[in-house]
Amino acid sequence: MKASNIREHLRKFTRLPHLAGTKQNLVYAEQIREEWLSFGLDSVELVPYDVLLSYPNKSQPNYISIVDQLGNEVFNTSLAEPVPDGYEGVADIIPPYSAFSPKGQPEGELVYVNYGRTEDFVQLKREMGINVTGKIVIVRYGKIFRGNKVKNAMLAGAKGIIMFSDPADYSAVGVQPYPDGWNLPGGGAQRGNVLNLNGAGDPLTPGYPAKEYTYRSNLEDGVGLPKIPVHPIGYHDAMHLLKNMGGRLPPNNWKGALNVSYSIGPGFTDTFRTQKVRMNIHTNNQVTRIYNVIGRIRGAQEPDRYVILGGHRDAWVFGAIDPMSGAAVVHETVRSAGKLLSNGWRPRRTIIFASWDAEEFGLLGSTEWAEDNAKLLQERAVAYINADSAIEGVCVCLCACVWLVFRYMHTHIASPEEGEEGVSLYDSWHKRDNWTSDRDAPRISKLGSGSDFEAYFIRLGIAAGRARYTKDRKTERYSSYPVYHSVYETFELVERFYDPTFRRLQAVAQVRGGLIFRLADSQLLPLDANEYAGSLRRYVLSIAERAEKHPEEMKMYRVTFDALFSAEENFTIAARDFHVRLQNLNRVRMVNDQLMYLERAFIDPLGLPGRPFYRHLIFAPSSHNKYAGESFPGIYDALFDIESSANQQQAWQEVKRQISIAAFTVHAAAMTLTQPA
Amino acid sequence: MKASNIREHLRKFTRLPHLAGTKQNLVYAEQIREEWLSFGLDSVELVPYDVLLSYPNKSQPNYISIVDQLGNEVFNTSLAEPVPDGYEGVADIIPPYSAFSPKGQPEGELVYVNYGRTEDFVQLKREMGINVTGKIVIVRYGKIFRGNKVKNAMLAGAKGIIMFSDPADYSAVGVQPYPDGWNLPGGGAQRGNVLNLNGAGDPLTPGYPAKEYTYRSNLEDGVGLPKIPVHPIGYHDAMHLLKNMGGRLPPNNWKGALNVSYSIGPGFTDTFRTQKVRMNIHTNNQVTRIYNVIGRIRGAQEPDRYVILGGHRDAWVFGAIDPMSGAAVVHETVRSAGKLLSNGWRPRRTIIFASWDAEEFGLLGSTEWAEDNAKLLQERAVAYINADSAIEGVCVCLCACVWLVFRYMHTHIASPEEGEEGVSLYDSWHKRDNWTSDRDAPRISKLGSGSDFEAYFIRLGIAAGRARYTKDRKTERYSSYPVYHSVYETFELVERFYDPTFRRLQAVAQVRGGLIFRLADSQLLPLDANEYAGSLRRYVLSIAERAEKHPEEMKMYRVTFDALFSAEENFTIAARDFHVRLQNLNRVRMVNDQLMYLERAFIDPLGLPGRPFYRHLIFAPSSHNKYAGESFPGIYDALFDIESSANQQQAWQEVKRQISIAAFTVHAAAMTLTQPA
Repeated sequence: MKASNIREHLRKFTRLPHLAGTKQNLVYAEQIREEWLSFGLDSVELVPYDVLLSYPNKSQPNYISIVDQLGNEVFNTSLAEPVPDGYEGVADIIPPYSAFSPKGQPEGELVYVNYGRTEDFVQLKREMGINVTGKIVIVRYGKIFRGNKVKNAMLAGAKGIIMFSDPADYSAVGVQPYPDGWNLPGGGAQRGNVLNLNGAGDPLTPGYPAKEYTYRSNLEDGVGLPKIPVHPIGYHDAMHLLKNMGGRLPPNNWKGALNVSYSIGPGFTDTFRTQKVRMNIHTNNQVTRIYNVIGRIRGAQEPDRYVILGGHRDAWVFGAIDPMSGAAVVHETVRSAGKLLSNGWRPRRTIIFASWDAEEFGLLGSTEWAEDNAKLLQERAVAYINADSAIEGVCVCLCACVWLVFRYMHTHIASPEEGEEGVSLYDSWHKRDNWTSDRDAPRISKLGSGSDFEAYFIRLGIAAGRARYTKDRKTERYSSYPVYHSVYETFELVERFYDPTFRRLQAVAQVRGGLIFRLADSQLLPLDANEYAGSLRRYVLSIAERAEKHPEEMKMYRVTFDALFSAEENFTIAARDFHVRLQNLNRVRMVNDQLMYLERAFIDPLGLPGRPFYRHLIFAPSSHNKYAGESFPGIYDALFDIESSANQQQAWQEVKRQISIAAFTVHAAAMTLTQPA
Repeated sequence: MKASNIREHLRKFTRLPHLAGTKQNLVYAEQIREEWLSFGLDSVELVPYDVLLSYPNKSQPNYISIVDQLGNEVFNTSLAEPVPDGYEGVADIIPPYSAFSPKGQPEGELVYVNYGRTEDFVQLKREMGINVTGKIVIVRYGKIFRGNKVKNAMLAGAKGIIMFSDPADYSAVGVQPYPDGWNLPGGGAQRGNVLNLNGAGDPLTPGYPAKEYTYRSNLEDGVGLPKIPVHPIGYHDAMHLLKNMGGRLPPNNWKGALNVSYSIGPGFTDTFRTQKVRMNIHTNNQVTRIYNVIGRIRGAQEPDRYVILGGHRDAWVFGAIDPMSGAAVVHETVRSAGKLLSNGWRPRRTIIFASWDAEEFGLLGSTEWAEDNAKLLQERAVAYINADSAIEGVCVCLCACVWLVFRYMHTHIASPEEGEEGVSLYDSWHKRDNWTSDRDAPRISKLGSGSDFEAYFIRLGIAAGRARYTKDRKTERYSSYPVYHSVYETFELVERFYDPTFRRLQAVAQVRGGLIFRLADSQLLPLDANEYAGSLRRYVLSIAERAEKHPEEMKMYRVTFDALFSAEENFTIAARDFHVRLQNLNRVRMVNDQLMYLERAFIDPLGLPGRPFYRHLIFAPSSHNKYAGESFPGIYDALFDIESSANQQQAWQEVKRQISIAAFTVHAAAMTLTQPA
């Protein structure tokens, strides 16, 4: 795999905006199909679905005003981001908006609610005594998924919500705004969908693929659609809205980095007291055709075992980081696989490459395809490797998945860093991000959520992994990367600042491609149940610790984690015995099936409470906190709910119920590892 | 397998009552374990669960009274059935009762509602204008599951429900009551549970096995527990309640065979007008330990592929037909398998034998074990053969399962009938029950519901089959068999009337055992997807025909079955191509997996509307009509609901939604049969 090729792929696919559902994104899909075929895949097809998307109204722009007593607009937010040099003539740059916001022109006083988290709203209400019913809330981006902020605002009674990028969360220290550096300029803003899908895919066809004949629910019954207008702004515009706010002063941890007081409101102060804020939102929902590109290499020995490398293609604008840095890596992986095929190689198992559409609108392309193929995938999929943005920082190649064996790949890959000639990627990674003080290994993190692996991992229980270059999590505090989802995600951003030699992207291609090749070709699957056992142990300890902050209630309601600890021990023993049995291996397919189905064993067909499509009992987003990646989300949420519940008895019963379900599931997973008969 | 052994097994296990949760049923479980071990199985274990059962109060009997104006009891129903000869000294014969009835002493006027079906209550309300709110309804047993009658009565507002066995439904023409014949005596009554579990298993632990550590919901939140008192009576007692009823005369098809008018009520007539009916119910719910017996033979080549033969052991009293005629057959099958093992044979796949507990209380033993082992079963179970009552008539060996290949077995088994020496069971069956006029083959019916295969087939999607001797469905009109669930199900009943030579039970043993052996030992699984395709075609035609009774509405709401017909055609082609590919078979495990997972492909993880544990989209009980075995229950129920719905628009939308889901599922099933890559 060549750095120069990856550069070319990235250049080629970032010249024009290619939002999901647009002509240009179909053009790229067709181009990818043609190129994958020419690389030598056995088959490549476009797979369409008709899903609900959301676009601003072309003739009525979205913006936010400050209006005076007479209703005159005395300030309006900008209608678009300043276009970066070299892209001036480009058509179809969609302005910043919150996809799936309902239309509306709510007017009212502003209330500032920090990051808009559950705990921020609780603090606002309990400690500050501020009720946001009928108000418009303004929150800063970051910490949690924007859709959760919107949900929290709705639940609190707000009639609109404005989200802004604060420099405290979207600027690195000592870095210039783009184009002189990679920080977010004041005129930039973060696009994004504001759904609460909880893994449902297309809001109108939850659980089923959005085909032509599929029944669609009414918009009012659509899953996860927000009911209040939402709009994103940059920090220049945010200054204007925040600077005159009145009311009480904020706690310290509510303050961002703008030169304003971050007063909570409600409303403006002094002479501005009579001014209000009005949102003007005219965004339309629209059922639109999207296209996944699906390519295949037929397995030689086990054609009915699938290894999948998938990443999305649709971008908010040019998408040079998100997602095309990932798509370029997939493209080069396909090219290199084609080369191997032409040399006579054929993998043991079937490999599927996917270029997903409409990820930005709620993981729609990947979820619809997973729904369409759920039966096959459940029985046959060995693993899913995700290929979203391949680089969002310059520190370290971060890998995620608790039990994929990464070591093999990394020790055979060279570090791309200058001054690390002769050093392996593994050692480079290890040096920069050691797991913990008592565990001397490179840190492997949980998968988290918010990208296309969700349906595969959290709904279907297919072992999943991801790998990317990322920032230094210990020192860099900004959320994702500064220009995330802005017009400034250009080819030049990557080439100038993130990966001038494209060797980091090459390293990511080697990791992702290496995983795919090893998963598809090694006789024994590179999965280690002992690693899973170790992680489970840590998770159980950590969730039990959280509960033990309430020792009296635990006593009163007789809550105990004994069953879960015992299940986890049982799992640890089963995993150890399983890997011991592997020493004398004579039934490869049988033990591989045990490995393949172990991830499936953590799926509860009933799903998490109220969230039928989040079915993985160990890994799923908390319902309070989408990106935080809590383990045992059922127990976590039940514990979290205790804090706000009026009925303690009932809330603790739910904790007990969730512990019992988790214990059963871990026991069941252990069973899948024992000798089959 | 020997008839004389089966006789001995039946004799041995029907001497004493062995209700679920009692000492005696544990004694039988232990005895079965010892004998299975001595027969030579690799392992046999008792597997306990703690489930909700229900027993009458020993010190306060249940009965129904007619009370006069002053509240004096002028008539009481009997407290027990007359005990049959030879069993006079037997302790622990539980009197007839409705398991899981709540306690209560409702008093009111009677209303007679025929069989208590949805359509009976609709007719009562719409055509007769009778409201049962606050009344006690009396219905006859038969046509549908008793739990559905109770649900219908509750929904209609009744405050109690009495069920009786009418001779029209529980007597064969020209047959004497037991002990002179096999008809139900007037003092006999049908026990049975009155739950609406919809496949949930233990009412307090839906979805999870009822282990020691399992969280249990409160009784009020238990699944399917009736909220009004229920009691069963025989026809002698029914005469007394019915004979003085007033109100309007019944339609002809509401009349049974008793010498009364079957007047509808409400209440009594003439001089009896002031009398009321009072139910006295003191039954207790109680979490109780039950025991499954699980025996195994380890497979030689594919230990991780399971073939299961399971049937229940618990009986209402002696249970000589239900279930011990089936249990005796399983016992002889185990003995014969042990014999083969001792001769050096070992099956290709693992065989599991199960003696389930607490079937009579809602399929609890089998469902809890299925919940406990859901992951393993989903990945590994090839087929489940059910072994409930092996004989309930003397006409023909009826087999059920749309795509198991029965032909092989039956042509190698001799007909047990006198005068059919030299005739095969297959030909005997074919002669007596030809499929249809245009299909010259023995009729194979749908599995239906109401026995232990439910969790395996309808929840987990494991191919399932059953076989038994049964009545002539064309001439014998009574429901199940006359003494069903009464004290008269004795060894002598079977020996004198149903199978004096025990050769019919031997034939059933040969069919059930033959299926197990073939499923476990043949290289290619004996499953024929073409048969499935043929059945699907007939079901689609039949459900579409039902809808087309509403041509105007179908036009108005744009309802079409096109997508479903097209999915069914797609399935037919995939099945045909699959079996053509089998001609040159070089990957046995792969094609067997395709066959094994085909049944799974009809499972929708979301389940049927409101019934998360009924997940098979082709076969599940209708929510209106438990034993009728409709196909495409989602569409069927949606069509049925149209008739009673106030919002036609919405009701037809649901029909469309269900058609779309069914079409998708049939397409997905077709996909599982296509070449994997």
